[in-house]
Amino acid sequence: MTKTNSGRFFEDYKVGDVIRHAVPRTVAEGERALYHALYPARHALYSSDAFAADCGLDGSPLDDLIAFHVVFGKTVPDVSLNAVANLGYAEGRWLVPVYPGDTLRSESQVIGVKENSNGKTGVVYVRTRGFNQHDEVVLEYVRWVMVRKGNLDAPAPEAVLPDLKKVLSVEDLVVPEGLTFDDYDFGLAGEAHRWCDYEIGEVIDHVDGVTIEEAEHMIATRLWQNTAKVHFDLTFRPEGRLIYGGHVISMARALSFNGLANAQMIVGLNGGAHANPCFAGTTVKAWSEVLDKAETDVPGVGAIRLRLVATSDGSVGQLKGEDGKYLPGVLLDLDYWALMPI
Amino acid sequence: MTKTNSGRFFEDYKVGDVIRHAVPRTVAEGERALYHALYPARHALYSSDAFAADCGLDGSPLDDLIAFHVVFGKTVPDVSLNAVANLGYAEGRWLVPVYPGDTLRSESQVIGVKENSNGKTGVVYVRTRGFNQHDEVVLEYVRWVMVRKGNLDAPAPEAVLPDLKKVLSVEDLVVPEGLTFDDYDFGLAGEAHRWCDYEIGEVIDHVDGVTIEEAEHMIATRLWQNTAKVHFDLTFRPEGRLIYGGHVISMARALSFNGLANAQMIVGLNGGAHANPCFAGTTVKAWSEVLDKAETDVPGVGAIRLRLVATSDGSVGQLKGEDGKYLPGVLLDLDYWALMPI
Amino acid sequence: MTKTNSGRFFEDYKVGDVIRHAVPRTVAEGERALYHALYPARHALYSSDAFAADCGLDGSPLDDLIAFHVVFGKTVPDVSLNAVANLGYAEGRWLVPVYPGDTLRSESQVIGVKENSNGKTGVVYVRTRGFNQHDEVVLEYVRWVMVRKGNLDAPAPEAVLPDLKKVLSVEDLVVPEGLTFDDYDFGLAGEAHRWCDYEIGEVIDHVDGVTIEEAEHMIATRLWQNTAKVHFDLTFRPEGRLIYGGHVISMARALSFNGLANAQMIVGLNGGAHANPCFAGTTVKAWSEVLDKAETDVPGVGAIRLRLVATSDGSVGQLKGEDGKYLPGVLLDLDYWALMPI
Repeated sequence: MTKTNSGRFFEDYKVGDVIRHAVPRTVAEGERALYHALYPARHALYSSDAFAADCGLDGSPLDDLIAFHVVFGKTVPDVSLNAVANLGYAEGRWLVPVYPGDTLRSESQVIGVKENSNGKTGVVYVRTRGFNQHDEVVLEYVRWVMVRKGNLDAPAPEAVLPDLKKVLSVEDLVVPEGLTFDDYDFGLAGEAHRWCDYEIGEVIDHVDGVTIEEAEHMIATRLWQNTAKVHFDLTFRPEGRLIYGGHVISMARALSFNGLANAQMIVGLNGGAHANPCFAGTTVKAWSEVLDKAETDVPGVGAIRLRLVATSDGSVGQLKGEDGKYLPGVLLDLDYWALMPI
Repeated sequence: MTKTNSGRFFEDYKVGDVIRHAVPRTVAEGERALYHALYPARHALYSSDAFAADCGLDGSPLDDLIAFHVVFGKTVPDVSLNAVANLGYAEGRWLVPVYPGDTLRSESQVIGVKENSNGKTGVVYVRTRGFNQHDEVVLEYVRWVMVRKGNLDAPAPEAVLPDLKKVLSVEDLVVPEGLTFDDYDFGLAGEAHRWCDYEIGEVIDHVDGVTIEEAEHMIATRLWQNTAKVHFDLTFRPEGRLIYGGHVISMARALSFNGLANAQMIVGLNGGAHANPCFAGTTVKAWSEVLDKAETDVPGVGAIRLRLVATSDGSVGQLKGEDGKYLPGVLLDLDYWALMPI
Repeated sequence: MTKTNSGRFFEDYKVGDVIRHAVPRTVAEGERALYHALYPARHALYSSDAFAADCGLDGSPLDDLIAFHVVFGKTVPDVSLNAVANLGYAEGRWLVPVYPGDTLRSESQVIGVKENSNGKTGVVYVRTRGFNQHDEVVLEYVRWVMVRKGNLDAPAPEAVLPDLKKVLSVEDLVVPEGLTFDDYDFGLAGEAHRWCDYEIGEVIDHVDGVTIEEAEHMIATRLWQNTAKVHFDLTFRPEGRLIYGGHVISMARALSFNGLANAQMIVGLNGGAHANPCFAGTTVKAWSEVLDKAETDVPGVGAIRLRLVATSDGSVGQLKGEDGKYLPGVLLDLDYWALMPI
């Protein structure tokens, strides 16, 4: 009865430790097809080999969020199994595109710990890196989670809080090698709006909505080999399966095509909050706000910083109440950088 | 708020206009696997590379209806977004098989417009062509839809009604290059019945049925990047999501294997009506009627013209009532040509 | 109305007959991705090309149960269509791994028949073989089913009962050519337990559970081109769709990763019983018992014989009641051999 993984508890994380996560994964055309089947994804660079080749890439990469979900999924058995809450993200960077046939694995370094005053839980900060089969880092991000203590008598560790950037600067972002928007076909991409057409502060209602079914989010979450019980087992959570927060991220990002069809590549994740839990039956809609714009060092390639908000009530432009807390209709508040033709 | 696509209205279509649809799509083994997962598809030519090679092809093409759905899906944002109803199809022809790795895009030419007498809607006729990455036309068909006017004061255009063939003749059909049934293995194909065993007027009950679930039809419809709201958003259509008509076509065609296992390739679409809407919970069954038979100019390759009817009530052989209207249990009435070993 | 397959009845099976099953199938990366989406499968050898290459294989094979389901699915129209019950399995052996791009077909030889005393049904024993495109046998197994008689007046055939091994010996098992665990990475595999850490009689609770949804099991079952009505058509079985027994096998095997992450390859199937029917809404959990251990003739490669039990009630270690019958909470009792690093 002792051979199964009961997960790590707060006291098991030491700053500096590197956790090598299990189960490397080869991703290919099947994962791409499923991504299109599970989300209304239409960004042309991730849909067409020919379009991507015209943008200077070796065919169409897998969606940046496929890379994120696969890398994230591997961390679940080591990081989230006894987690009470997923508190935040920072310093996420996509460094190398992932192509069909690549094999991904993940490692996380513990970069901070702080026991909570209740003595029952603590916050753990990890920097996770995803590697491909060439040992290139394809993706990295910081995540912090609240984790239960297994042994309430374990002494509180010295608190270490990492110094994290609130926002990545454009210099932190990596434009994939060879990327060019010189021959970008706006007609095939689906919208005429280019980087210079967006204004800081602009809010975009993405209009479309999807009412989520149980089978869909479970299929998606399993695809990333994320096996956290709460997403699958109704006896564990009789009030309904909690939908994996990443499912809401992908759904909202795909919906944002309508108004942001040219925000092709995600290259930076500044922060993110799963503001409220999401359950099957919810109709997810999305809106975006342009937070910033910057030119990259590649001519013609602009960076746009976007707040992507997923909602359960169709509201647009409202985020927090007077108490500073997220409104109940907000599911996700994500702050990311994307690349767009100038 | 003005960056999203609000779709074209009736007055936006001018005869002669060519609409280049967005979001090219590379289709591969993943789409094939999903097609087999979503429909009980068993036609051997689309299941086995080895079987297809024995039929003279370069491996197994993707199902003809995958090509149709992908090409059709691209037209939705430009043709169907403000459509009230999908009225009909004509002159559909499959010209070049689609293989894994091909990239498809679509164009539609407006070939007819006619404002309705109510002044609020009109009928638009488009001829849609799907292209592969070599700019070969892989598929073409005419579709007409009823579209809302955006500006009720827009003057009615001169009515133009295209001259469409009621039925494609066998000379209009294209037998894929290299196709041969000389070494056709009826045992592996699943049935012994050949072209000469079918009689005009014969009705075949395909027996099997599938009760459709919400998650399935949404997964299918998204796979074709068809993002029409009615298929996904329960707040938009609280009485239930309307199932994409193409989902019913694929379901019925797959069910028709039982009795028509050798009607391998779809090469012509003479017409089609989505007779009644379909919702989750419906048990789709199907029957076919042999409408015509003809020999192609390739020895051993026969063409069979079939009426494929999908039903919600399991009825067989009944189509319309005394009033000339489709019976309530009829979901689909499709008239197509398939190729079969003589 | 006579062109559809009404299936074989008991009197149609003659000992010695070989039935060539229809619809060969090419399996590829899409099937692999769907397998990961439908089951919480994490065995590293089937997840990562790089991990499999380190184990001496030509990349990651498709899951052994994909091979089983595809080969099995083809037999349904010829063996199970008029079956009352699937009674048992024996002498199952995986002989050659199946790789993406392989094309599978199936044949079954009738090796036993015995009419039941009621004169209405009989038991048919078949040995099914799955072949790849090189005509190599990739998989074989014996299955016996109870089948209805079509003609109650047909005389009872001479009873022939095949002599089947209760358990395959380690000499019967085939270790895939080239397989080595010499450089096996336990960290990437997910658990440290090796062959020598397991004791005969040991029981492992796999802890995790999945509550099954209708759409999922239908998608899975169709993927294997298993079209038995009972799994799809609610008008045929209004009390609920019966979940394909193989879906429960794959779910339980995937859940068994937690505690048996290094039981990588399934090479033998000694027996199996679908103890109770499974319907949507069931939360499937699993436990295993170590039944035996043996060394293969490949140094470092151990064989472990496992009883894999799927449950609907989360019970662990209990199988049968005092009456010798399976307890109502037991869905599956499977006896198989797997390969594990010593």
